[in-house]
Amino acid sequence: MDKIKDNFGLYLDLYELTMAQGYFLNGKENQQANFDYFFRNNPFNSGYTVFAGLQDFIDLLFDFKFSDDSINYLNKLGFNKDFIEYLKNFRFRGSIYSVNEGEIVFPYEPILRVEGNIIETQLIESLLLNIINFESLIATKARRLRYSAGDKKLADFGLRRAQGLSAIHASKAAIIGGVDNTSNVLSAFLYDMKPTGTLAHSWIQSYEDELTAFRKFAELYPQNCILLVDTFDTLKSGIPNAIKVAKELEQKGYKLNAIRLDSGDLAYLSKKARKMLNDAGLHYVKIIASNQLDEYLIKSLIDQKAPIDAFGVGTNLITGKSDAALDGVYKISMIENNPTIKLSDDVSKVTLPGIKKIFRFYNGEGKFYADCIALVEEENIEIILHPFDIYKQCNVKDLKKELIISKILDNGQILIKPKSTKEISEYVSYRFSLLPEEHKRFEFPHIYKVGLSPNLKQLRDELIKRMKGGTTI
Amino acid sequence: MDKIKDNFGLYLDLYELTMAQGYFLNGKENQQANFDYFFRNNPFNSGYTVFAGLQDFIDLLFDFKFSDDSINYLNKLGFNKDFIEYLKNFRFRGSIYSVNEGEIVFPYEPILRVEGNIIETQLIESLLLNIINFESLIATKARRLRYSAGDKKLADFGLRRAQGLSAIHASKAAIIGGVDNTSNVLSAFLYDMKPTGTLAHSWIQSYEDELTAFRKFAELYPQNCILLVDTFDTLKSGIPNAIKVAKELEQKGYKLNAIRLDSGDLAYLSKKARKMLNDAGLHYVKIIASNQLDEYLIKSLIDQKAPIDAFGVGTNLITGKSDAALDGVYKISMIENNPTIKLSDDVSKVTLPGIKKIFRFYNGEGKFYADCIALVEEENIEIILHPFDIYKQCNVKDLKKELIISKILDNGQILIKPKSTKEISEYVSYRFSLLPEEHKRFEFPHIYKVGLSPNLKQLRDELIKRMKGGTTI
Repeated sequence: MDKIKDNFGLYLDLYELTMAQGYFLNGKENQQANFDYFFRNNPFNSGYTVFAGLQDFIDLLFDFKFSDDSINYLNKLGFNKDFIEYLKNFRFRGSIYSVNEGEIVFPYEPILRVEGNIIETQLIESLLLNIINFESLIATKARRLRYSAGDKKLADFGLRRAQGLSAIHASKAAIIGGVDNTSNVLSAFLYDMKPTGTLAHSWIQSYEDELTAFRKFAELYPQNCILLVDTFDTLKSGIPNAIKVAKELEQKGYKLNAIRLDSGDLAYLSKKARKMLNDAGLHYVKIIASNQLDEYLIKSLIDQKAPIDAFGVGTNLITGKSDAALDGVYKISMIENNPTIKLSDDVSKVTLPGIKKIFRFYNGEGKFYADCIALVEEENIEIILHPFDIYKQCNVKDLKKELIISKILDNGQILIKPKSTKEISEYVSYRFSLLPEEHKRFEFPHIYKVGLSPNLKQLRDELIKRMKGGTTI
Repeated sequence: MDKIKDNFGLYLDLYELTMAQGYFLNGKENQQANFDYFFRNNPFNSGYTVFAGLQDFIDLLFDFKFSDDSINYLNKLGFNKDFIEYLKNFRFRGSIYSVNEGEIVFPYEPILRVEGNIIETQLIESLLLNIINFESLIATKARRLRYSAGDKKLADFGLRRAQGLSAIHASKAAIIGGVDNTSNVLSAFLYDMKPTGTLAHSWIQSYEDELTAFRKFAELYPQNCILLVDTFDTLKSGIPNAIKVAKELEQKGYKLNAIRLDSGDLAYLSKKARKMLNDAGLHYVKIIASNQLDEYLIKSLIDQKAPIDAFGVGTNLITGKSDAALDGVYKISMIENNPTIKLSDDVSKVTLPGIKKIFRFYNGEGKFYADCIALVEEENIEIILHPFDIYKQCNVKDLKKELIISKILDNGQILIKPKSTKEISEYVSYRFSLLPEEHKRFEFPHIYKVGLSPNLKQLRDELIKRMKGGTTI
């Protein structure tokens, strides 16, 4: 771990160093560039994405420098001595503009942009993409789980199935998106979140029988006792033994908190378990369920009226299965005051030139209606244009609007106060409440309108024309 | 990063601490336990899994301790003072037995086992699962890519789409599995691997036109120049400009190394590109392709005879898409000399009791034939039994066999010398060459035989009988 921390400036793709050296040797090190971060598809066929990872990205940016060991390594790789000298004092001293962490965002919006010299803006590319893509993926998954679960409790149990050290950020992003707590103690410690947990089959198996194991656990944790009931046989052994222990706890003035089902048909078993508990007068004992859950299974369990009070979610949450990655990219849009674009045979992959901002428009009910990507100097937007379809536009005149992107880092200096995980999570809930329902459903969600300002579209089309020598989109 | 490193003992699930405290307070802290690591399904519907992550797990185990900050946090969470005192000096001082890193392994085999007191064996559960599950997933994916790619070059370009800090281990696991090199400089530095890279669209866009950008790059890197040709128009602009620059390089005595295609139909474009390059006498210029590749697309490109020399693979490799996780588990099998099992309605989820080892049998051609899970004291195995189907068994008498599990950590002391990534990678290639072809195909691979020794099966069935009071499987 020491070596990772001390050499974190090497957390980049080799080509970033190769290009940065090229810019340096070609005397371009003071050229000013603007890069946009955006993604092209909402993950999980969602109608939205929850933007997350900003705070962690900024924190890691301060660790992004080149130690003596890193410098020696770059020497060994054959980088130019003068360039290496330059890297010794490297810090990111550019500026960053971003939407708030926890904002509900949509494809093609430049939700974060980086201004600075071409070297610093290039070197941080992979770090930015790596953290923001991932945390946004997980926060979006968590929000979908929350949408399914309604007001039932949701816990992240994913550490053991997380992709290695990704768990550190994933558990945080899960809470941001709407999960209540996590079993991951390191993340809980780092981000001031509530850790949670029950017990494993090994506890049961380490005693001579299940009843003894339950009793020992209840003696130790009478005020918050959760019993795992599927080690041997859920209905014939686990639940009857849990009921015995619950009754013994009652004698001592305590209440069994919950039982946990971790295998089998959760709809069937939870109904059986609820009835057995109720028949024993244990209406207050909650039922926690886990085992390969995702937003669809949780919805199905709730639709079947499975009497489950809390869900533990592992693999599918912590890995953002089955998408595994948000397709965010980092594209240059301005170099030395010249707007630039990348063309593509696929029209949807043509980038947006210039320095841009994002306005969000509200409908008459005070909900999100449409977003407009505009040039930074634009103020009065009356219509927004579909990015590719020349026949589609949308009138936003007189609608209430807000600017959703602001400066968070000024020449390397942070401008915003760090927010607690709880604050960010509450912000997600609040913003999500402003998103109309038709964008939230899982099946073919309504596509949220994201348009271009007429000036931006004109600039883009002119650049395409210039590059292609004639034809426009 | 400092806080992560300093508090790495907290990289666990809360329930491990809860149970450990329970064992401690119940006077069980010196009870000896054995836990087995195994998985139930090969990822990606493969016929095999590449075991990876052992070295990283052992390294992280040495960081797994409780700093003052961690101790204060556990106090805040309300853990017992005496237990916290015990944790202050906690180190893992147990023993670990494992197959070699890079071994080809199969479902249900206890490929790694942990012996020690019940507290230390329990506390390291999540760390072990987290690292081994993930690296094995990625190494297996990489091996599949290698299987598709034959002797073509493969590069890991995944950092930007990796799940956060998972990239650090993922790039190593990719190389272990058979990828040639990585764009991830930090991993290359940490694990002595070869970093690789080309250039991004931003380089092209930072110059006034593509030809100038190519020329500038070629001037700087004449000996290893790779040109990205799809910024504006691959066939009309990128390749013609690359050919111009290649000719100019020839004048100076250099050879353009390669062009890189990063969008569009790679089969079509690579054939067009090859023809254009050949027509210009540039037969030596290689073609590198990237863009959402996986083992199936690479196989398809090769089947179509696309003249691609090297593939860059990102998301699908680095996230193990679409499986996202190996389902490895960590189950107690012995406590204080008593074998223990976990039952389940699903017969395949019943665990194997006792202390076990694994023999691998070879067929007449010197290839892997079948594996046998046996009790640790067993030597002469003549038949192996299907774990669940009482009618299936397999005669292995007189077949050459090897023990594939050995002790790597003895009471906290490491017994093996660290292997280089290259050595592990070569070991994977060697062992994979011993796996019969029918287990390697992607579609319905032949299932490799993994059986139980008669003694182990008898022990398991007796325990089931005892737990269930009569019935056996």
